[in-house]
Amino acid sequence: MDWFTEYYNGCGLTVKIKRKIAEHPGIQRVEVFETESFGKMLVIDGKIQLTEFDEAFYHEMLVHVPMLHHPSPSRVLIIGGGDGGALREVLKHKVEKVTLVEVDESVVDLCKKYVRIDGGAFDDERVEIVIDDGKKYIERCEPFDVIIVDSTDPVSVSATLFDREFFEIAAAKCDVFCCQAQSPLIQKEYFRLLIENSRVFRQRRLYLAFVPTYPLGIWSFLLAGKIDKVYEDRFNALEGKTVHYNPQIHKAAFALPEWLKKEVGGCI
Amino acid sequence: MDWFTEYYNGCGLTVKIKRKIAEHPGIQRVEVFETESFGKMLVIDGKIQLTEFDEAFYHEMLVHVPMLHHPSPSRVLIIGGGDGGALREVLKHKVEKVTLVEVDESVVDLCKKYVRIDGGAFDDERVEIVIDDGKKYIERCEPFDVIIVDSTDPVSVSATLFDREFFEIAAAKCDVFCCQAQSPLIQKEYFRLLIENSRVFRQRRLYLAFVPTYPLGIWSFLLAGKIDKVYEDRFNALEGKTVHYNPQIHKAAFALPEWLKKEVGGCI
Repeated sequence: MDWFTEYYNGCGLTVKIKRKIAEHPGIQRVEVFETESFGKMLVIDGKIQLTEFDEAFYHEMLVHVPMLHHPSPSRVLIIGGGDGGALREVLKHKVEKVTLVEVDESVVDLCKKYVRIDGGAFDDERVEIVIDDGKKYIERCEPFDVIIVDSTDPVSVSATLFDREFFEIAAAKCDVFCCQAQSPLIQKEYFRLLIENSRVFRQRRLYLAFVPTYPLGIWSFLLAGKIDKVYEDRFNALEGKTVHYNPQIHKAAFALPEWLKKEVGGCI
Repeated sequence: MDWFTEYYNGCGLTVKIKRKIAEHPGIQRVEVFETESFGKMLVIDGKIQLTEFDEAFYHEMLVHVPMLHHPSPSRVLIIGGGDGGALREVLKHKVEKVTLVEVDESVVDLCKKYVRIDGGAFDDERVEIVIDDGKKYIERCEPFDVIIVDSTDPVSVSATLFDREFFEIAAAKCDVFCCQAQSPLIQKEYFRLLIENSRVFRQRRLYLAFVPTYPLGIWSFLLAGKIDKVYEDRFNALEGKTVHYNPQIHKAAFALPEWLKKEVGGCI
């Protein structure tokens, strides 16, 4: 194989491949590639989940925004994120415990073995890994300060993480909630589903980030819950630097272009 | 032909094509395609210049930012931009005259005939079209309020628009200057050339925008000259709406991620 192409709708990103490192056909088809320009690349069911080149753009924006909207996040839940990237970022904060609930054990296994973007997070004693369905888990868990959803698209194993009931339970189980919210530009169906079903939160805000290897480079996130204030001073106390995120980017990410304001129609 | 692919460095964007509408092999190879999802697409020397789908993202960010940093832009020069997109946006402001200097007449001809994103701008009586080399033109022209450079990559016919002498002359010939500044993420060589050679400006700022069909969706712009103040109230007086740009996006665009701050090393 020479090139891997992820097709969207009449377009696609093509990436030059050096070799396939590993593959696991389980409840999802998980593949790890060595690419020519992006380092290692994780692909699930044909969709690029991360590359070493730009995973920090995504993980830092997914994690530090909600973490810095909470006054003192100590207990954090990550749903999905079996690659360990979000986990690594959460551990830069002074947390007591982080629980990661991943439905597909092979993602954790392959990433531990071949991708290793966790930066040692999997071995941190504050971390608990649970292999379970995210929705089933939050139905019975104790509340968390922050819940972060780092899921695949709302199909297959991730479908339940985008339904109304999931958001209802999540809203009751945390102070601050954040999830990846798909591409508002070319995945409008997924995006609208999420916007509609997450109405249960009393307060919601949408923000954007550059994620170069996601569809057309633009990605959205939903922040919800008690999110009036941002504690940006804590940025300087992070243990470990960031590649992309800083407090200016945090603020700027909430500026929505005209086409997106029209799309969400003032409901956010 | 089924798919058109623009390759970058070990990756590329691939776009499904319905048909090739026109082609002109002159000083540059200019092609117009009808695509499946992006409407019409203009390609020069194998590189996507615009698609109907997202050209407004680029043209609005290239034009309204410099125009709103000038207190009363009346005489405006566009170098390049033979497709008419930047021209269309400049004419939303209360200008007296806009001069467009395009080195390649076939770009204007093909776009007038087949692309038509100008929204009637080519027929506006405030517009003067000059077919000439941009650098030669500014050597002898009278000063302008705003100069906007909407060029191709710094090779071939656009190479002189990135040299030190060009920026020296431009700095003397306008109050506010703005040019597209390539991808700071995967065209580092071009980007660094521009940052180095544009040092002649007493004040420079860099800003970013999502341009989905440009390399990996992230694009930069250089704003220079007398740019301390932004006259954002004039946004509401624009003749014609914007698709992407608004004053919040304008401000947010100047937030630079950590990797880019490191790249420009505090020189901007």
